[in-house]
Amino acid sequence: MVRPGLFLTFEGIDGSGKSTQARLLADALRAAGHEVVLTREPGGSAGAEEIRRLVLEGHTDRWSAETELLLFNAARRDHLEKTILPAIARGSVVICDRFADSSRIYQGLTRGDLRAKVDALHDLMIGIEPDLTFLIDIAAAEGLARATARPGKELRFEGMGLGLQEKARAGFLALADRFPARFRVVDGARSPDAVAVDVLALATAALAGQAPG
Amino acid sequence: MVRPGLFLTFEGIDGSGKSTQARLLADALRAAGHEVVLTREPGGSAGAEEIRRLVLEGHTDRWSAETELLLFNAARRDHLEKTILPAIARGSVVICDRFADSSRIYQGLTRGDLRAKVDALHDLMIGIEPDLTFLIDIAAAEGLARATARPGKELRFEGMGLGLQEKARAGFLALADRFPARFRVVDGARSPDAVAVDVLALATAALAGQAPG
Repeated sequence: MVRPGLFLTFEGIDGSGKSTQARLLADALRAAGHEVVLTREPGGSAGAEEIRRLVLEGHTDRWSAETELLLFNAARRDHLEKTILPAIARGSVVICDRFADSSRIYQGLTRGDLRAKVDALHDLMIGIEPDLTFLIDIAAAEGLARATARPGKELRFEGMGLGLQEKARAGFLALADRFPARFRVVDGARSPDAVAVDVLALATAALAGQAPG
Repeated sequence: MVRPGLFLTFEGIDGSGKSTQARLLADALRAAGHEVVLTREPGGSAGAEEIRRLVLEGHTDRWSAETELLLFNAARRDHLEKTILPAIARGSVVICDRFADSSRIYQGLTRGDLRAKVDALHDLMIGIEPDLTFLIDIAAAEGLARATARPGKELRFEGMGLGLQEKARAGFLALADRFPARFRVVDGARSPDAVAVDVLALATAALAGQAPG
């Protein structure tokens, strides 16, 4: 019997280094002999990538917050069915760059009254949470400086400025407080290699904690 | 003050003649001096049409029932915000060929356990019902014969055959039983003109029943 895999997510504000950390963890776990599927949201499956293009194209006000939320959930559902769940079922470690917590923060950010809908929609149509979520935490100003220094980066959410970066950071930290069993907050204001050492130690502990199949 | 408009929908199985009836009612109400917006689902706004293309392209198993349900609701939300609600606000009669009742029947048809999700998702993200729904009722075999005789028709749901047409008809009739204040069941097994006379009489009664603004 195959031992079911592990579902790990990385969250954090833009410029936190979470994508780099997701990649470094994937490399390290592969080097240790694990089968790893590295993926990201929005996107992560052929259908979800098409929905992602639809969401990100055009002006930021092309879709209302509610329509965008439905599209993101459609993409997530496809990603879950086509990529994440099959990989977990065959015993892989799935590492996903952003998942439902990003919807909780970003879709709830500019329209506070939407947060209850975000949670209800997740419970209704997605219904699963990661085994472990790494929150790569960094000061809002530093994240913004790093994110805006990157060439060719999608500016959909970065365009919202420092105040919203601060709200997003506070929102992620509040989620980590609310779900302490699932979240690991890692200080991202260090070199990528130093951060990666902490992340790998936490992931290795989680893998060791799995019951044998 | 502008008197708010009226929101009318047409439902029925494929081949029932509901699209023809929607058009005939729009013509008759315009001739009577009403401002009418004739629209349809899926689609009905620029964004919803793009989502519609995404849903209808490719194999029928390209999207799971859950992902398709989310995409249809995203399209419906856009259609509602961009087309239906603004038209109602300026006093128009909105006539829509298929709306949420079609999701209740078709998305719940092949996967009975999805029906509760269809209702919950509608309540959460759409939340409005038409003022009046015309169910153009026809025997399943006749609907199927008419629908398959039409050239160039999208065969997405017609492809499902007589058994499912019968289930869909029974489902629509059960909805009409459950919501008698909103539904008007019209016998569609007559000439289009004869059906249109009944529909116009019912719509005119509904318009007369509106409170003045």
